[in-house]
Amino acid sequence: MTGRYLLGMTVSIPSPIDWTPDHRIRILDQTRLPEEEVYLDLRSVEEVGEAIRSLRVRGAPLIGIAAAMGVAVAAGPLPRLSASVLLTRIREACRLLGATRPTAVNLHWALKRMERRAEAAAGAGEPLGTALLAEANAIWDEDRAMCRRIGDLGAGLIPDGGTIATICNAGALATGGIGTALAPIYLLHERGVPVQTLVPETRPLLQGSRLTAWELHRAGVPVTLIGDGMIASRLRRGDVQAVLVGADRIAANGDVANKIGTYGLALAARAHRVPFYVAAPSSTVDPSTSEGSAIPIEERAPGELTGWRGHNSAPAGIQVWNPAFDVTPAELITAIITDRAVLPPRDIVRTLD
Amino acid sequence: MTGRYLLGMTVSIPSPIDWTPDHRIRILDQTRLPEEEVYLDLRSVEEVGEAIRSLRVRGAPLIGIAAAMGVAVAAGPLPRLSASVLLTRIREACRLLGATRPTAVNLHWALKRMERRAEAAAGAGEPLGTALLAEANAIWDEDRAMCRRIGDLGAGLIPDGGTIATICNAGALATGGIGTALAPIYLLHERGVPVQTLVPETRPLLQGSRLTAWELHRAGVPVTLIGDGMIASRLRRGDVQAVLVGADRIAANGDVANKIGTYGLALAARAHRVPFYVAAPSSTVDPSTSEGSAIPIEERAPGELTGWRGHNSAPAGIQVWNPAFDVTPAELITAIITDRAVLPPRDIVRTLD
Repeated sequence: MTGRYLLGMTVSIPSPIDWTPDHRIRILDQTRLPEEEVYLDLRSVEEVGEAIRSLRVRGAPLIGIAAAMGVAVAAGPLPRLSASVLLTRIREACRLLGATRPTAVNLHWALKRMERRAEAAAGAGEPLGTALLAEANAIWDEDRAMCRRIGDLGAGLIPDGGTIATICNAGALATGGIGTALAPIYLLHERGVPVQTLVPETRPLLQGSRLTAWELHRAGVPVTLIGDGMIASRLRRGDVQAVLVGADRIAANGDVANKIGTYGLALAARAHRVPFYVAAPSSTVDPSTSEGSAIPIEERAPGELTGWRGHNSAPAGIQVWNPAFDVTPAELITAIITDRAVLPPRDIVRTLD
Repeated sequence: MTGRYLLGMTVSIPSPIDWTPDHRIRILDQTRLPEEEVYLDLRSVEEVGEAIRSLRVRGAPLIGIAAAMGVAVAAGPLPRLSASVLLTRIREACRLLGATRPTAVNLHWALKRMERRAEAAAGAGEPLGTALLAEANAIWDEDRAMCRRIGDLGAGLIPDGGTIATICNAGALATGGIGTALAPIYLLHERGVPVQTLVPETRPLLQGSRLTAWELHRAGVPVTLIGDGMIASRLRRGDVQAVLVGADRIAANGDVANKIGTYGLALAARAHRVPFYVAAPSSTVDPSTSEGSAIPIEERAPGELTGWRGHNSAPAGIQVWNPAFDVTPAELITAIITDRAVLPPRDIVRTLD
């Protein structure tokens, strides 16, 4: 794998997504971590859709980038198709990719942007393939830059030598850059400021232990792994200085949808007066969703909770409730860190001005 | 397996412990559930110690019963040993079994009771084997009766048609009877009152999904399984009427040590004004421990969090914090249900009068 994001001079983390020389999308299959580092080359919109649906590619910002790259793949390089045939094909690709996961808003934001660019290019008589490839790369580049800015803004909020708790994975594996919630941690680490992390495993799919612990450890940041049920007890010990989490969608009132478990973590942070920060690119803010209760929450298959790698962990025949996300109300959030500003959640729509 | 606890006329759950006809201790190996229902015959104190340490037998009341049965096995049937040799052997057995797990107080309570009975029997010239077998069976019988009384007292607190959330396993598999936290649920079910249960899987060892869901489902009680990080979000929905958990030790001030995750569940219950009940036999109350911070908390091996059944779920080389229990402060507990009374936690030592 060639594309790596340097953190300072010595530390690198493999990129979760890249182009191959022959215009395929190369992804790190995140379902195989931490046991295996396997890369897959995706050649069609259908393959990109499958990779998003099955969480081989995941994380709200990275889903947006992957979907945009998928649309670019759908558009070319097939120079002999007419613009109207290509536009139809692109709109179908956007529909297919938009249906893969309902909660993350970056996905829909990226697809809408690709569709508009396609329409503008068709109207101007530009070659669609070239225009959409450039647009997908722009989305990726902008995300990488947004991660850095979130890191810079967030790093100022973390006390020296602090321990930061997070949940799920809002790191390099979830974005086109150095992550959202993890970006401040990486920047402090790059500057030589000691920083510790507390990572709940994040059931059912263990993105905390499989992905966050993996990338932090790989970058040389000290990690302590805990079970999801240990968070409140650990915060009570008093050695965690801040909580930093990502977001899949931020409603206009500042309510935040993020990985299931975030709400309980926010309640525990409040009980122990630990600041609770949400870090996300401004594309995560959805002004058309007035409040958290209006955010659609994806429910996933019962099998994610009733077994793992071929072993049953629950009796057959019981009911399972397996939402992938929960909503943390704005009043539990100390501030939201976007690429543009650190804002109290109630003012979050100002970030879009 | 012969020993089954009838719940009403039709429902039965396998007993987690029993005597074999030839004076061995037959246990249901709880580490193998729910995939296999395997019984093991234990023939020595060492084997009982291993079974407790490795959680083949677990649950605070059941550990006490198993340890008492282990002491009885150590004492006989070897009629030719002198009382003083036997007393030494019994004290060694108590030391070995007492060192298996530090948090549950019932274990130490049961061992102390067995040791005192041995001393009294030796002083009175009674045969020790017979005396200790009777004492172990008395501890078991009393626990079975206590479960019923906890069930009766607790059933009165649950609204008709309610959904009850619990954590870990404080059921038939954790006691000598129908459980502590699950006893009110079983009694309502036996009486034909509809009752639903919400069961978090309880990482790392999944006693919720593997054991609680298994025994409730087996008894015909409707179960919904969730991940540990889903509890707060589910309580927010408003369809859970009460939380009922067990206890491993209750301090004199009403603070409760129970399975890790209980404290976070209590915080979420408080945030949503859901009554939070602790159910435990009075032997769980430890008047010599003034408050929760004085309760020793067992830390278990990192491997419980970094892998499962031969698969790594976290990168090698990271730190792990894996406490088996946490402490819920008395102020978050609506009431403690013992076999003697339903009391506010601050008055819990009155249960011992």
